[in-house]
Amino acid sequence: MTVTGPQGFRAAGVAAGIKASGALDLTLVVNDGPLDVAAGVFTRNVIKAAPVLWSQEVLKQQRLKAVVLNSGGANAATGPGGFQDTHATAEKVAEVLQAGAIEVAVCSTGLIGERLPMPAVLSGVESAFKALDASAEASLNAATGVMTTDTKPKQAFAKHDGGWSVGGFAKGAGMLAPNLATMLSVLTTDAVVDKETLDRALRAATRVTFDRLDVDGGTSTNDTVLVLASGASGVEPTELELTELLTKVSLDLVLQLRADSEGATKDVNITVQGADSETDAIAVARTIAEDNLVKTALFGSDPNWGRIAMALGRVPARIDPETVSITINGVTLFAQGMPAADRTAADLTAREIEIVVDLGVGTEAATVYTTDLSHGYVEENSAYSS
Amino acid sequence: MTVTGPQGFRAAGVAAGIKASGALDLTLVVNDGPLDVAAGVFTRNVIKAAPVLWSQEVLKQQRLKAVVLNSGGANAATGPGGFQDTHATAEKVAEVLQAGAIEVAVCSTGLIGERLPMPAVLSGVESAFKALDASAEASLNAATGVMTTDTKPKQAFAKHDGGWSVGGFAKGAGMLAPNLATMLSVLTTDAVVDKETLDRALRAATRVTFDRLDVDGGTSTNDTVLVLASGASGVEPTELELTELLTKVSLDLVLQLRADSEGATKDVNITVQGADSETDAIAVARTIAEDNLVKTALFGSDPNWGRIAMALGRVPARIDPETVSITINGVTLFAQGMPAADRTAADLTAREIEIVVDLGVGTEAATVYTTDLSHGYVEENSAYSS
Repeated sequence: MTVTGPQGFRAAGVAAGIKASGALDLTLVVNDGPLDVAAGVFTRNVIKAAPVLWSQEVLKQQRLKAVVLNSGGANAATGPGGFQDTHATAEKVAEVLQAGAIEVAVCSTGLIGERLPMPAVLSGVESAFKALDASAEASLNAATGVMTTDTKPKQAFAKHDGGWSVGGFAKGAGMLAPNLATMLSVLTTDAVVDKETLDRALRAATRVTFDRLDVDGGTSTNDTVLVLASGASGVEPTELELTELLTKVSLDLVLQLRADSEGATKDVNITVQGADSETDAIAVARTIAEDNLVKTALFGSDPNWGRIAMALGRVPARIDPETVSITINGVTLFAQGMPAADRTAADLTAREIEIVVDLGVGTEAATVYTTDLSHGYVEENSAYSS
Repeated sequence: MTVTGPQGFRAAGVAAGIKASGALDLTLVVNDGPLDVAAGVFTRNVIKAAPVLWSQEVLKQQRLKAVVLNSGGANAATGPGGFQDTHATAEKVAEVLQAGAIEVAVCSTGLIGERLPMPAVLSGVESAFKALDASAEASLNAATGVMTTDTKPKQAFAKHDGGWSVGGFAKGAGMLAPNLATMLSVLTTDAVVDKETLDRALRAATRVTFDRLDVDGGTSTNDTVLVLASGASGVEPTELELTELLTKVSLDLVLQLRADSEGATKDVNITVQGADSETDAIAVARTIAEDNLVKTALFGSDPNWGRIAMALGRVPARIDPETVSITINGVTLFAQGMPAADRTAADLTAREIEIVVDLGVGTEAATVYTTDLSHGYVEENSAYSS
């Protein structure tokens, strides 16, 4: 069990007929309590899909009973009609659960700019309600129902010694599959926690996990991470304990998302240390992660530190060319303004690549998780919608 | 004639033996006066190649007699030894021209992090000096000597009715060929002009031409645009006239750079209008131009406006989702927050693609020149240095 691993949760994933393929395309996660506390983080894109606008309103309330998610359509850039579709979906879930629509969050993923087939969505909600279960199969179906170009479901679970746990699933990554907006994740916990503490813990966890996954710089119209707390364990962890377990499960999901990202042949960790501020460290790491010349060199297993130097030098951060060092897979290739070793000393043939950039001007650090840029990425993203 | 088209200039391009291939790899441009006024713009990357650091000092002086440029090595990230190499190159040019080293600008392009073969460079300067000429062949050789992965030389020339002209050449584009840092351009004019006016005119011209070419977001360690004024026409144009002709020649070169960029199969103009500020318009256009999901869709001739909406929505600019419209090749596909036409109404099969985004909140506009992201780009940039 993953999303249903913590006590007090049931889930289901069904084939509602939204996707022509007949694959699972509608997921329902229900919090049976006793608590119905929740928190969420959403895309910072100003063009927000209808379900994001709706779920942000839901999170302003005190109670969240359930989350309904669909693949096969992002319901983004669909105007007032699209918002009505989201509302009708929440109403349908509320009806079967005998709850209020404002207690039901909605997430959608798929093509931008297309309306959802609402008869299929609404009958899918009824099927999902009937299929609700706390079994491992239900967790798997829930994680599968949100998949788009994902080749496998992403699930994670971690139990604390104190007798409570965190579980969840995720799909997509960044705007990896942009048509297929987006990165969605639902986390669950049976910890006893109040809304404000859960919100802080979720933000602290996502800022070093989901926020640090950067495959192509995209920020979709639909990105959403929700966490639901049932309190069913009866245990109230400290905020730090909760943050740590949420971070652990989130990082597990993030690394699964990266490993399954479109066309990726390399898993690349970029750590920037010795920075004047964490903001600088993140900015430098992100710029390197998003640089196509760095990414294509990594695809070619080429320890081309000159491209990394070029990329970091264009970041508006505190950088002194004389104090920067660049280390790839343990071999320092650039230091003190000049080459420190022959580039061939670094072996990049394995899938895992560790890049460490030390700015040498401060004590702050950050790690960003990225991939290479491959023929597979170009192929999948040039051919998709046609 | 191009770089030698304006009166008062001679140029040469020779095979100095810097490149193992025996191709032309050293270019010399000499201003025979009577004026020796110049201006330059340089990369904003904080990691600057030795020749950039040198030439910035040269431009602080009042006189510039010549520019020497080499391909086959960027002389970037080469430490104090690399700077000494640049200085020795300028000294050699000064010696043959009987000028001061501080009157000689230096530009380099090629692999980052490698020292130049100085005996070849210095003997190349002597050969180039002997070959100096104002002929069309000399212009062509000068434009050829700076080529790296360029498949053809880029030259331009424009004559003003008033009896003066602007010419020049360029190579590379952005960090299109990052190992092969960089974008270099030398412009010449026989207009009579003072240094301050020339500097303002060059900055005004480059900010809407070279600064608006964005193939992959890169900013190399070596980017340099120089303009030399001989005054040999005896005509002193207005600052506006000079700016306009410099802009015309620069745009000509920029479109040639784009057309020859690595792997490009599409020439894409992205115009953002109705913006609150020109800064906003540029930021939105650049973000769209650099978005890999937009670029791969363009490679696939797919009018995927959802990816454009996603990209613009993540720009920190004044954007209202309800007032944005997206028009591709004359067909408005998105407006008032929802689809305005079926995406198939826009035909993207031709090489030229016009994207117009109207933010609908102001009156400012900007155009950025970019390309698609193709298999060819990945191939050339993953295979290059190995």
